Order: sequence, then structure tokens, then C-alpha cells
Amino acid sequence: MTVATHPQNIGIQAIEVYFPKKFVDQSELEKHDGVSSGKYTIGLGQEKMSFCDDREDIVSICLTVVQQFMQKYNVDYKQIGRLEVGTETIIDKSKSTKSFLMSLFAESGNHSVEGIDTTNACYGGTSALFNACQWMDSKAWDGRLALVVAGDIAVYASGNAQFPTVDGPLSVISYIRALDYAYLDYLKKLENAGVESPSLDSVDYLVFHSPYTKQVVKAFGRILFNDFLRNPTAPQYAEIYTQFSEETLESSYNNKLLEKAFINLSKSVFTAKTNTSLLAARNIGNMYTGSVFFGLASLISSVPSSELQGKRIALFSYGSGCAASIYSFKVVGDVSDIASKLDLVARLNDRICVTPSQFENIMSLRESTHNNAEYSPTGSVDELFPGTYHLTSIDSMYRRKYELS
Amino acid sequence: MTVATHPQNIGIQAIEVYFPKKFVDQSELEKHDGVSSGKYTIGLGQEKMSFCDDREDIVSICLTVVQQFMQKYNVDYKQIGRLEVGTETIIDKSKSTKSFLMSLFAESGNHSVEGIDTTNACYGGTSALFNACQWMDSKAWDGRLALVVAGDIAVYASGNAQFPTVDGPLSVISYIRALDYAYLDYLKKLENAGVESPSLDSVDYLVFHSPYTKQVVKAFGRILFNDFLRNPTAPQYAEIYTQFSEETLESSYNNKLLEKAFINLSKSVFTAKTNTSLLAARNIGNMYTGSVFFGLASLISSVPSSELQGKRIALFSYGSGCAASIYSFKVVGDVSDIASKLDLVARLNDRICVTPSQFENIMSLRESTHNNAEYSPTGSVDELFPGTYHLTSIDSMYRRKYELS
Repeated sequence: MTVATHPQNIGIQAIEVYFPKKFVDQSELEKHDGVSSGKYTIGLGQEKMSFCDDREDIVSICLTVVQQFMQKYNVDYKQIGRLEVGTETIIDKSKSTKSFLMSLFAESGNHSVEGIDTTNACYGGTSALFNACQWMDSKAWDGRLALVVAGDIAVYASGNAQFPTVDGPLSVISYIRALDYAYLDYLKKLENAGVESPSLDSVDYLVFHSPYTKQVVKAFGRILFNDFLRNPTAPQYAEIYTQFSEETLESSYNNKLLEKAFINLSKSVFTAKTNTSLLAARNIGNMYTGSVFFGLASLISSVPSSELQGKRIALFSYGSGCAASIYSFKVVGDVSDIASKLDLVARLNDRICVTPSQFENIMSLRESTHNNAEYSPTGSVDELFPGTYHLTSIDSMYRRKYELS
Repeated sequence: MTVATHPQNIGIQAIEVYFPKKFVDQSELEKHDGVSSGKYTIGLGQEKMSFCDDREDIVSICLTVVQQFMQKYNVDYKQIGRLEVGTETIIDKSKSTKSFLMSLFAESGNHSVEGIDTTNACYGGTSALFNACQWMDSKAWDGRLALVVAGDIAVYASGNAQFPTVDGPLSVISYIRALDYAYLDYLKKLENAGVESPSLDSVDYLVFHSPYTKQVVKAFGRILFNDFLRNPTAPQYAEIYTQFSEETLESSYNNKLLEKAFINLSKSVFTAKTNTSLLAARNIGNMYTGSVFFGLASLISSVPSSELQGKRIALFSYGSGCAASIYSFKVVGDVSDIASKLDLVARLNDRICVTPSQFENIMSLRESTHNNAEYSPTGSVDELFPGTYHLTSIDSMYRRKYELS
């Protein structure tokens, strides 16, 4: 047994990400779909959307990102004592995605790895991270590292029952309501930790779960509205005090004027504290449970390590259903190595742009063959990034085979 | 904030169980199915099998058991700081069962409850228990209690794709192989904790995940075979030493003679250390992730609290896919209150015996209506135990409504 010295600064030491190589341009998609110009690009705040073809499934993307992670950061599979996957993408009715990932550990002989899958819509990765940190902070810790995988294949329904049923308007209010209560709980925790009169000013960066980036703009405004309710006569609210002084959390969920006013009032703070974390979200689309961690990866990729030192980064994680948390941590030590290993901007630029028609064909194929037995995928392996695990066949017992490109 | 004093003896303080009120007798089922007499009762070691009708789903059974737990042990919903559900029963493609359970907390105003669902076949509950203990043992703990729910509706396929695909023979060997490695890891941990020459003698009770009780008899024999491999010349193995001295773990998975010999050799120890934990398994059938905890509940219900004091109870949890652990704890303090609140024997005797034909009709109805939208269940509410949450309707958006009987 490794004798485990109690660790200091339990947190995130390294990050790797996966996204599909193919994307469809959102303004092209607006034309193709015959919707008003700006509906996706301005209305939703999305520029590009990456998507998976039939070579990719939740197992292949998790295999790829774990293998790349271990290789890039030169971590031995024997060093991992906990592996937990947050996902809402169901590929097998019983087996965890974590179990599939254990095939990567076979050669090392390390079969003693705690953790399985954890699920509540887009919240799974956050719960997995909490569990990993708590494991490391408990007597159960054996001195080894924990690896947290947050992954999903995000697809919205187009008239079939395969995908989660989404009630759009309810879903948006649910997100905002969960944000309100998570923020109030978070402020209490800051207070308990000795922060005086906690508010948005207490955090340097605020990273949100992003179904689409416009929702994050609204959420940021909502945080300011929460601060306003706690301290309405502060000078920064002078212009809008009279208009909204009677409002409460519950009265305001459908108040579009209020929403707009707080978005406007929060614009410059939004740019400083949140905008850089939306790089991946704008360019990839919704990533479900991975979304908030892509936000963190975007932030680390956009702000120099020196500038991040000692800064408090807060994350808002939200999963429909619902479960939500705001939590924060401080940056201690150089993160430029993570930024250079992520190489996010270059990798985003190295993708293949496909036309909306091609996109639709690939999605139809996925939809009609999803969950098929005895299936051989037809997607071109050349259209995957090098080093990508991809599906080669599904047999009559639904057993999937993968190869490394 | 509650100032949390670091807790001693983190563990299980209280247990409640749920099982359906209807059962089918296994010898009756043998006749009805036209199989040889003893196939289910002796071959699988099963006496009775409880089963759910269309009033029961994973949400209704978890709502019931949580509500009964809180009431019996007089726990306030405000006292709970963590709630985690281990299950492999999918009712919603995104939302966790934990989220459904939060409706019970609404009245108390406690919405700050960490934890979601955790999944790997029958292993989920064990992971949930580990997570809860580690939470309590970490700085994240806020002084409140953790509640772990392990629940499933166990149904085997009868020629349709609704249920997990099971490769029987592979599954049995996989269970035994996982047991071997979990046991070896466990012995190492005992050694690290200062136990000299650890073996089956080091534990007082050994509780197994039970797909059917005959599998547990075999598993117990296998544990003795592991001990034999570590110390083959010990006097207790004198009779069989010559016959099996060349065997290894890998060579022996299909050796029926060896299996039989170690079952015979372990008979009296099995009776002392494991048999009492099979009370529920024999009378209810497979309970998937709840199985091993029903084993613990059976043990507490069968052995007087005074006799259990200071005893080491080991649990073997296994989930296909696979994930497995052996872990143990010691009994500290009186558990007679748990036994009397469980009232297991009386509750098992209070069930309704239905004929194999009625059983088949109810299963067919479940199968044909499972996952239906706009469905109103038809099962008789009188055939549920009092205080059972049951499904009253599913609307066109798949939203389920429940009532308390």
C-alpha cells in the first residue's frame, strides 16, 4: 500500500477535451432551415456546431479522451485509483461507460479502480468531480490519482422518441430558478468561509453550463438581479431601482423587460468574468455534462496563466430534472501547460466544415441506425482526428468493437 | 451552518426495505413452466419470487422506501445533506431517480441535498454507499446525514429487447472471476490494516450479491478455494489436496468437480457465516443493486444484536459489466432497533401468493405497457402494502403521477 499523506489543494491538475471533427456553420444552417437570419447566431448565440457521425458513440469518445489524456500528461494507468464518468448518454442498459474504459487499463494490470457512472442530465460530471475530490479527502484515499470523465453526445429530438423529451420554455425557467437557489446557497457558503458581503464581486470568473450561449448571457444578468435584490440601493443600480424595486425572484421569471435591463447592466462585467469561457460553447454547441468543463478549458485557453494566479473561478453546473450547484476554487500554480496541451483554438480551427445537407444526412443515418444490432458504421475514418477510437462493428448481441485511427 | 465535528464510526445507522406484496411460488412455477421438479427450488435455490405490477416503478418504490424510512426512524427531511440513488432501472433518459425523490423534501424547504444517481448494473448501491461515507469523511461534509437508496425492478427477458441482454454462462464466470480478484484485494487491505494471514477466518459474516442463492453457495466455495491456493497444505484441505494441488484461479473456472468439492468442504462455515443473509434472496428473488443490502438486512433480522457486537461483516457487491468490491465493517452498538423496524419475517409472510398464470398475465401487461405515454395502470391498489406510493397515470409528455395508498 502507498501510505497516503493527506493531500493539500485537492483540485483539477490536468484537463483534456474531445470534440468531433465535423461541424456545420450556424448561419448556413439558418439559410438551409429557412429560418430568419440571426435566429441561431444571435438568438441562440451559436456560431458553429460540431456533431458526431456513426463512428462515434459515448464509449468511443470517452476512450479517446482518456487515452489522449494519459499520453499527453504522461500518466501511467497504474497511477489511477478512481475513475468516474458523468454522462446521460445511454448505450447499454446496465454496463457503465466506466467499465468500457477499464479496457484501457488491462495492459497495466490495474483492475483496482474505484468509481462508476453518475447520472442526472447535464449535472453528472459535476457530481463525479465532487465524488473524486471527497474520495481524495477521505480515509478511503490510497494515494493515487482520480480521473473524472464528463461526456455526452448531445442530440435534440426531431420528432422521434429516441431522445430526451424537452419542454423548452419550462426548461429555461427551471435553469434560471435553479441558478437563483444555487447562487443563494453559494453566497451563504462564501459567508461561512469568511467572505464579507459576498456578491458577484467576490468571484473573478463565472463559468456556466451552456445549452446555448445566449442563455448564459441571460443567466449572468440574473446573477446581477440576485445581487440587486440583496442590496437594491447600491449606486450601481440607481438607474433601474425605481423600475424593479418591487420585484422578487418568483415574480420575475417571465419578466422580459427585467431580463433585458440586467443583461444591459451586466455587459462589461460579463465580458470580464464570463465571455472568455464561452469559446468552446459558441464553436461546438451544447455538450451536456461536458459543457461547464469546456467552459473552464476555454477560460484557461484564453486567459494567460499569470493573470489567473490566485483568482477565484466559480462554476455553475445545471442538469435538467433538476440538479444544480455553484462552487468555486482558486488557481494555485501554473496552468500554461494545460493550455498548451489543450491547444483548443488550433484544434477548433482544424475541423471540417460540412454543408447543412450533409449534416442532415449524417444525423438521419445516426437516428435510423442508433441502437441497431449487427451494424457496421459507414462514416469515413479520415474525417476523425488522428488518435480517435471509433466504432467498427456491433454484433448480434449488441457488443461493440472499436479501433484506434 | 452546522459546525461539523469530525464523525467517528462512519457507517450504516438505519435500514429500511421495500419489496412487492405479490409473489409466485417457485415449485408451482416449475410445474406451470413444465420444467423438471427442483429446477428453480434446488437448481437456483429459490423458494418464492416477488414481482411488481403496473402500479410500481423505480420511482414509486424509492418514494415509498424513503418515506417509510423517514417516518419509522423519525428523521426530518431537513437533516439530510446527501441523497444518492444506486439503480440500473431506467425510467427517464435524463432525470435522476434522486430528482424524483426530492419531491418528498419540498415541504421541509430543504433543497440543498448533494448527490444524484450512480449506475453500473447491480453495483450502483455500493458505489452510492462509498460516496456517502467519503462525503461524510471529507471537508465537504456539513454535519447532516446521508441517505443511500439502492433500488431496481429486476425482470429477465422473455424474448424481447426491453431488458438487458444476458449471456448466462459468461455472466456466471464473470461473477466468480470478479469475486476472486475482489477477495485478493480485500485480503491485501486486511493485511495493510494489521490483520495477520487474512483468510475467510478473518470475517465473521460474509454477505454476497445474490442473482439466485445457489450462486452464493458456489461463490462461498470459491472463497475457500482461494484460501486453499494461498495455503494448500493446511490440515483442513488434507482430503482434497492431491486432487486439486495443480489448479490455479484461471484453470478452474469450468471445473465442476472442484466447484462441488469446495462447496462440500465449506458447508458448515457457509451455514455459520452466510446462510442467514439469504433469507430475503430466497423469498424475493434477485433484487439487482438492492440484493447485497437485503443480505445485510436479512442477517440483522436473523442474528440477535448481542451476538453481532464487534463482529466483522464483509459484503461482496457485484454488477455485470463489470464492477465488484469486497469491503467490511464491524458492528458497534445495538442493532435490535433496526431488526424490529425492518420486521422482515412478518412482512414477508404478509404477502399475497398468486398463481403462475396470474403472474404471467401481470408480467405481459407490464411488458406491453412499459414506457407507454398516456397510460393509466390497472393493478389493484389493494394488492399493495399500506403506505405504498403507486403510479396513477402517465401523460402524453411521459410525466408520471403518484399517490400514497
